[in-house]
Amino acid sequence: MRIVIANVNTTEAVTEAVRQQAMKAAGPGTEVVAVTPSFGPESVEGSFESYLAAVAVMDRVAAVREPFDAVVLAGFGEHGKEGLAELFGVPVVDITEAAAHVAGLLGRNYAVVTSLRRTLGQIEDRLRVAGLAERCVSLRATDLPVLELEADPDLAARRIAEQAVQAVDVDRADVICLGCAGMAGLAEHVEEATSVPVVDGVTAAVGLAETLVRLGLRSSPSAYPAPRRKTITGWPVTGSRA
Amino acid sequence: MRIVIANVNTTEAVTEAVRQQAMKAAGPGTEVVAVTPSFGPESVEGSFESYLAAVAVMDRVAAVREPFDAVVLAGFGEHGKEGLAELFGVPVVDITEAAAHVAGLLGRNYAVVTSLRRTLGQIEDRLRVAGLAERCVSLRATDLPVLELEADPDLAARRIAEQAVQAVDVDRADVICLGCAGMAGLAEHVEEATSVPVVDGVTAAVGLAETLVRLGLRSSPSAYPAPRRKTITGWPVTGSRA
Amino acid sequence: MRIVIANVNTTEAVTEAVRQQAMKAAGPGTEVVAVTPSFGPESVEGSFESYLAAVAVMDRVAAVREPFDAVVLAGFGEHGKEGLAELFGVPVVDITEAAAHVAGLLGRNYAVVTSLRRTLGQIEDRLRVAGLAERCVSLRATDLPVLELEADPDLAARRIAEQAVQAVDVDRADVICLGCAGMAGLAEHVEEATSVPVVDGVTAAVGLAETLVRLGLRSSPSAYPAPRRKTITGWPVTGSRA
Amino acid sequence: MRIVIANVNTTEAVTEAVRQQAMKAAGPGTEVVAVTPSFGPESVEGSFESYLAAVAVMDRVAAVREPFDAVVLAGFGEHGKEGLAELFGVPVVDITEAAAHVAGLLGRNYAVVTSLRRTLGQIEDRLRVAGLAERCVSLRATDLPVLELEADPDLAARRIAEQAVQAVDVDRADVICLGCAGMAGLAEHVEEATSVPVVDGVTAAVGLAETLVRLGLRSSPSAYPAPRRKTITGWPVTGSRA
Amino acid sequence: MRIVIANVNTTEAVTEAVRQQAMKAAGPGTEVVAVTPSFGPESVEGSFESYLAAVAVMDRVAAVREPFDAVVLAGFGEHGKEGLAELFGVPVVDITEAAAHVAGLLGRNYAVVTSLRRTLGQIEDRLRVAGLAERCVSLRATDLPVLELEADPDLAARRIAEQAVQAVDVDRADVICLGCAGMAGLAEHVEEATSVPVVDGVTAAVGLAETLVRLGLRSSPSAYPAPRRKTITGWPVTGSRA
Amino acid sequence: MRIVIANVNTTEAVTEAVRQQAMKAAGPGTEVVAVTPSFGPESVEGSFESYLAAVAVMDRVAAVREPFDAVVLAGFGEHGKEGLAELFGVPVVDITEAAAHVAGLLGRNYAVVTSLRRTLGQIEDRLRVAGLAERCVSLRATDLPVLELEADPDLAARRIAEQAVQAVDVDRADVICLGCAGMAGLAEHVEEATSVPVVDGVTAAVGLAETLVRLGLRSSPSAYPAPRRKTITGWPVTGSRA
Repeated sequence: MRIVIANVNTTEAVTEAVRQQAMKAAGPGTEVVAVTPSFGPESVEGSFESYLAAVAVMDRVAAVREPFDAVVLAGFGEHGKEGLAELFGVPVVDITEAAAHVAGLLGRNYAVVTSLRRTLGQIEDRLRVAGLAERCVSLRATDLPVLELEADPDLAARRIAEQAVQAVDVDRADVICLGCAGMAGLAEHVEEATSVPVVDGVTAAVGLAETLVRLGLRSSPSAYPAPRRKTITGWPVTGSRA
Repeated sequence: MRIVIANVNTTEAVTEAVRQQAMKAAGPGTEVVAVTPSFGPESVEGSFESYLAAVAVMDRVAAVREPFDAVVLAGFGEHGKEGLAELFGVPVVDITEAAAHVAGLLGRNYAVVTSLRRTLGQIEDRLRVAGLAERCVSLRATDLPVLELEADPDLAARRIAEQAVQAVDVDRADVICLGCAGMAGLAEHVEEATSVPVVDGVTAAVGLAETLVRLGLRSSPSAYPAPRRKTITGWPVTGSRA
Repeated sequence: MRIVIANVNTTEAVTEAVRQQAMKAAGPGTEVVAVTPSFGPESVEGSFESYLAAVAVMDRVAAVREPFDAVVLAGFGEHGKEGLAELFGVPVVDITEAAAHVAGLLGRNYAVVTSLRRTLGQIEDRLRVAGLAERCVSLRATDLPVLELEADPDLAARRIAEQAVQAVDVDRADVICLGCAGMAGLAEHVEEATSVPVVDGVTAAVGLAETLVRLGLRSSPSAYPAPRRKTITGWPVTGSRA
Repeated sequence: MRIVIANVNTTEAVTEAVRQQAMKAAGPGTEVVAVTPSFGPESVEGSFESYLAAVAVMDRVAAVREPFDAVVLAGFGEHGKEGLAELFGVPVVDITEAAAHVAGLLGRNYAVVTSLRRTLGQIEDRLRVAGLAERCVSLRATDLPVLELEADPDLAARRIAEQAVQAVDVDRADVICLGCAGMAGLAEHVEEATSVPVVDGVTAAVGLAETLVRLGLRSSPSAYPAPRRKTITGWPVTGSRA
Repeated sequence: MRIVIANVNTTEAVTEAVRQQAMKAAGPGTEVVAVTPSFGPESVEGSFESYLAAVAVMDRVAAVREPFDAVVLAGFGEHGKEGLAELFGVPVVDITEAAAHVAGLLGRNYAVVTSLRRTLGQIEDRLRVAGLAERCVSLRATDLPVLELEADPDLAARRIAEQAVQAVDVDRADVICLGCAGMAGLAEHVEEATSVPVVDGVTAAVGLAETLVRLGLRSSPSAYPAPRRKTITGWPVTGSRA
Repeated sequence: MRIVIANVNTTEAVTEAVRQQAMKAAGPGTEVVAVTPSFGPESVEGSFESYLAAVAVMDRVAAVREPFDAVVLAGFGEHGKEGLAELFGVPVVDITEAAAHVAGLLGRNYAVVTSLRRTLGQIEDRLRVAGLAERCVSLRATDLPVLELEADPDLAARRIAEQAVQAVDVDRADVICLGCAGMAGLAEHVEEATSVPVVDGVTAAVGLAETLVRLGLRSSPSAYPAPRRKTITGWPVTGSRA
């Protein structure tokens, strides 16, 4: 089977990191096609950027030539899943939902831990829409200023582990979801610090997408009906610009 | 004060209808500036179109030259509010939320009634995200095929009134929200049929936006922080295409 | 239009303060009539007093001679709204609900901060009944003894600002609602301390009431039906005592 | 022990009916003192009347000379419980909550069935405030006009049984609560019609009140603190009128 | 009336302690029959043990010769209630639910405080299933290692009181439920420390069971239908082993 | 990898059917070991039987000689998952939760449709405990008497499809979960009737279990800690009987 995994920002290095992460979870018969939007922000850290990225991802996936069996949306807390499902019909797995579903299979309560507080509101929105917020006991971010976080990744890692420990000890989380597509490398460290399972959204999403494809399931046409034929100016965005 | 009201589709006639509706609610000192996206779908009936419209609306509002005090997003169940709040800081009132807030001020339980069933899922998502779903007792649509609805507006009106009566009698709704920017004309008819207050999102949103401006309030920078400076390819969309 | 704003206690100085606060929000064509109950407690700090005040307010508003277009109930967390709506049919806006609705328009999550812990339970009840509790992340009070609070208003202000900062930093509130009709003066101070919007219930309620009147809406007769004719001993309370 | 049971309206015949119903549940050592408010409506069918009744009941119970161990508030969906708890400290059992608690002990889901639709909103409010709404699958009323209901009690009984059957068959209720203090006589009939347990609020409340007294428990002073000393004009209402 | 109270573990001393606790709540005409399972764990501290205990309790109660009117399941957070209700038809009161129901009658919010953190998840599950979790503001355990807790009961008591104080002060609990069948002796101590009512599940359950019996109520056959006739290998467990 | 799939009843034919169903979902490298409890009911249709089955399944899985990587609990709405997770540490996937998780990945709202109404309460309990009830819009059963259902499987199939159509049309379900381990054969028929995806719990659970194993995840020791060493009389049940 072929799974398209879409980075939500325009940074190729992130696409490559996501692709490598996805490969760890993919079964032997699965081809992973990682794509980068041709426009949009270099990193997605808010709703304006997230909406733009949603369109850029739809635009980019629409340009994939080979047939594919599922799409993974590799932005934690980002928009776009429903649109992808409408356009392509195949299963579309958002890494936010994937992490929460997998967490729910492993324990009662889970927490999301990430670096930037400004992303927590959007993550919460996605979990609410997905009906997965009920067992989410906390959304935690390090409270370091952005610049410090970026200057010192080790510090960020320690702070994330600290928040994870608080999530387990204070909020009674049984499972930790890492709330960022680029955090996969931290899983082992956080698991050691907390002694509970740590879920990375990208690998979770790839695994779930494979399962849905293998079960012969598709996105519900009742929830995500194919768009009706109509005039759409400027779509596809890249095509209309070319 | 000046309020920008954004149609979500590219159909000028809808923009004009929305503008006239908005004028009914606007106070004497309020200038209403109605804008039409320069790209996107001619009508918005699903998530793919809604995401595209969200970007087109942000793009169009960013092109408004005059200073403005608030934005009204005139698409029922559509995306984009959070992005507008991040970009412009002023209060941004989505007509879906506006209708639900006003309904909550008038009675215990409310229902949303609209024409097309395919839009109900998105409306529900918006209400959940806004924390306004708890007192929403039902989301109802006529079950007529789309073509029939469009061919016979009177039939649509009767069917909407029928669903509103069911919402009151069966679901115990105290207030009816009309779930479409273009339905304002039906309010009186539905009110007669049901004997309960009927809320139109556009007028509700304009009224609420005026109130927020008069109270000197702005969108919370904690919920909707201004975007950080960064490279964003292809933004603004129209600018980058020009 | 004419809006009756009802103080819930018998202290005229509070009525005057509420009236002045209301005037700040009222539009040019709005007449604000502030009324004081003719019986009941000098301050309302619990359910017994709140029920008594609810009846005293209904009694007092029933004695207003001029026609009016809306009622604002100016007691945070107090009873009475539903009764006023039944008796008078016009929109009735409770300042607790008003603050929460406005907060919901400005951010995702809000908190209520007030001085006395003993009032938090009632506030929570009102928010639950109104279906507005879901996005309320915390209800916080200073933990100073009552006498100290009353002896030193500056200390109270500092403590309230401290709690507001906690609500933003720890509970992730995006907006702060001041949980007391008499706290309006603190808004600016709390906004400076927290950098998030601060909502005062009285001005919020006046703004919302004006909007409802301008939109031609009334309280839902399904939720708040006019009382049936029947024998009611001792009503109106003042009339029956006269 | 001595339990005061308060009718919420001024109709002595109802007080007597409630007293007899209470006696059925009371243990051998329990004295039941049924009281009638000295003012207020002859029947309570809305929020205005309910608030007035709440004060009239507090006023009347405050006039009871003998010491008592608990209070039962015998109005389904009516206000006043919290005030009584603050004033008297002893356990106060509202028949609405009592019915829902007992229903929860007997099955998963319960429904409330009553005669007048106009009372359902208030019942729902009480269940929400009490945190007991989650397992309430429906609130049903007969849809007969009031006059017909009153003219033909047998018809009312049949219609209530019909609604109870619908609650069991359609809404999956496991237990039926009769939503009116005066409906106790119907329990057997409804139980036969539905084959599920039927709970009457008055007997449930008396039983629970006895249990609380026997366990040596009191109302929580944290939830319902005793009123502070202060000037309260016109209280007690009857005393101030005398 | 005769109430069977079932210890969930095989330790006779616990059965005797539970029996004595139950006797404190039982009315003069009530006979309490305390039973010990004939197999299963010596103490129940997890789900594996809880499921085994559920079967052992059903097996043991099925062996009671005398007719009985109600069953009390004396394991906090343990499984089995629904099975007992199906088998015996009489009211079955689980001490977890009993404590939460009684707490709800005394205040708005309650907390559960117990010694071992590992039992909190199961307690939470029971409260969720019973629809009683909404007003549970916290589940707290001492964070002492098990061995220390067992070696020093006084220390455990102090730590439980400390957690109860936190539940009241930080989580705004109005009532404390002691989350363990063996904690009844601590109630007075915790009440002194917190000044709020403290509920012990065993006495609460006995009181509620008596009430249900006196009201002539039974478990709902819709929720807990009697088992159909069929082949069941190895049941009753003790009988089949004999 | 090796997955143990546990039938919950003693009927070997059901075990074989479940095994064949599981094989359809299992990847090429996966060995499925289907086991039958050595005691318990021949079919599980209630809580008494479900608790007994939970113990019988734990007993049977404990007797599996080969190492295994995950367990699938193949009883819809049945007990036991938490105990298995405690005993074996590996991921344990309950088919009820599996179906709901997969449904959530495919659409907004889902419904469960099954044959016997008496099982709906338990299914609801499992979904509540798992935090998956929020997006479950209905639980529907055919209302045929049991004997008729069993006598005429075709009739049962038609009735289930009818209920599924109602779930989609009336309750707005986007996905149907078949609520019984033995219903897999109906999926295609129900999908044709409804045009929405139909999820079978057994295949869903096998797919999810494979994913969890491949991701290197285990059950959370915080949620499901390994049992402490202690005296457990009569365990393992078969061992102690031997």
